[in-house]
Amino acid sequence: MITNKNCIIRLSRYKNALYRLQALGFVKVFSDNLADSVGGTASQVRKDFSIFGISGNKKGGYQIDSLLEKLNSILGKDQLQKVLVVGAGHIGSALMRYRGFEKEGIKIVAGFDIDPAKINRSNPVPILPLDEAKAFIKSNQIRIAILAVPDIAAQSALDLICAAGIKGVLNFAPLRLKAPDGSIVNNVNLEIELENLIYFVNVAEKTK
Amino acid sequence: MITNKNCIIRLSRYKNALYRLQALGFVKVFSDNLADSVGGTASQVRKDFSIFGISGNKKGGYQIDSLLEKLNSILGKDQLQKVLVVGAGHIGSALMRYRGFEKEGIKIVAGFDIDPAKINRSNPVPILPLDEAKAFIKSNQIRIAILAVPDIAAQSALDLICAAGIKGVLNFAPLRLKAPDGSIVNNVNLEIELENLIYFVNVAEKTK
Repeated sequence: MITNKNCIIRLSRYKNALYRLQALGFVKVFSDNLADSVGGTASQVRKDFSIFGISGNKKGGYQIDSLLEKLNSILGKDQLQKVLVVGAGHIGSALMRYRGFEKEGIKIVAGFDIDPAKINRSNPVPILPLDEAKAFIKSNQIRIAILAVPDIAAQSALDLICAAGIKGVLNFAPLRLKAPDGSIVNNVNLEIELENLIYFVNVAEKTK
Repeated sequence: MITNKNCIIRLSRYKNALYRLQALGFVKVFSDNLADSVGGTASQVRKDFSIFGISGNKKGGYQIDSLLEKLNSILGKDQLQKVLVVGAGHIGSALMRYRGFEKEGIKIVAGFDIDPAKINRSNPVPILPLDEAKAFIKSNQIRIAILAVPDIAAQSALDLICAAGIKGVLNFAPLRLKAPDGSIVNNVNLEIELENLIYFVNVAEKTK
């Protein structure tokens, strides 16, 4: 099965759109509706679904509840995903307190930091010393982590948690890291996102 | 000139890699070096540069300082970029305190919120009532904003700031917004990024 990151991102967007449509009372949906709600084309929707063996009914479209069930299963949302955060600075702390993850079945179970002043075992999300990360990851079978440490600490923190069993990392440190064998690193680079926006705003102003 | 988002993201990455190489004492660089440091190919590097009329010397490669000057000019980094943050919740507040932007020539100049309890005019980054945003944007000629408000408030906040002159928005609200005419919205969807990671980690585990 060949899938790429963009295809899976679109599945997430279809899923989110379906929940919104369901909240509006929709029971069925057509590929055109889904395309409209995520800004794509109906043929792209059908192609994405066909990769996963999901087919609609030409006349009736898709049943939202059964489509959601399939998408949630594909996206691993049929079980709670436990995630840890490495780095309890501004961004890391905000992510630990962020309530948007819970409704997506994602639970931040612990934070880790090297700064003793940041350790707080009685926090709703406990913040533990980084040297306890290995044992925690193993005993709780965590596979996903968010890395929010300064750039100079990022590669060593990544190596440490991957050696302990982490398989997927969302990296907020503003540099590209070398993923250890068998693990995946996705990057969220806020500086680059802003730079990108600035570029296109400048281009639009120059061509006016 | 045809450019897409990915091309500009690569320019940002080349620029960041060049600073790191420069810090290591490099004066010249070859397209192979740049390709290695961002995980691409040398021909992609040359193609990206040629779009902007940047050419190297076959034997000597590129002079890092002049290459940086050109990239910084293209990316609008030759002037300080003033950015505001709408929404002073966990994520918004973390972004206001985040120090990584300053070294990129990006300055968060103000935050806005509708909650009177969050207003703080003496903060290093002042947090002002949202109904002052329009006047602030106009008098300070701000064009870029970060939107970090709950999803139900996102579209109306977006419409408000764009009507006041904002041209580019980095949206953290977990839904896709309709960009008003003449403005650009880039989305950073943390839930979708995590879902994506979970999917590929699951696929890797199943195919072992």
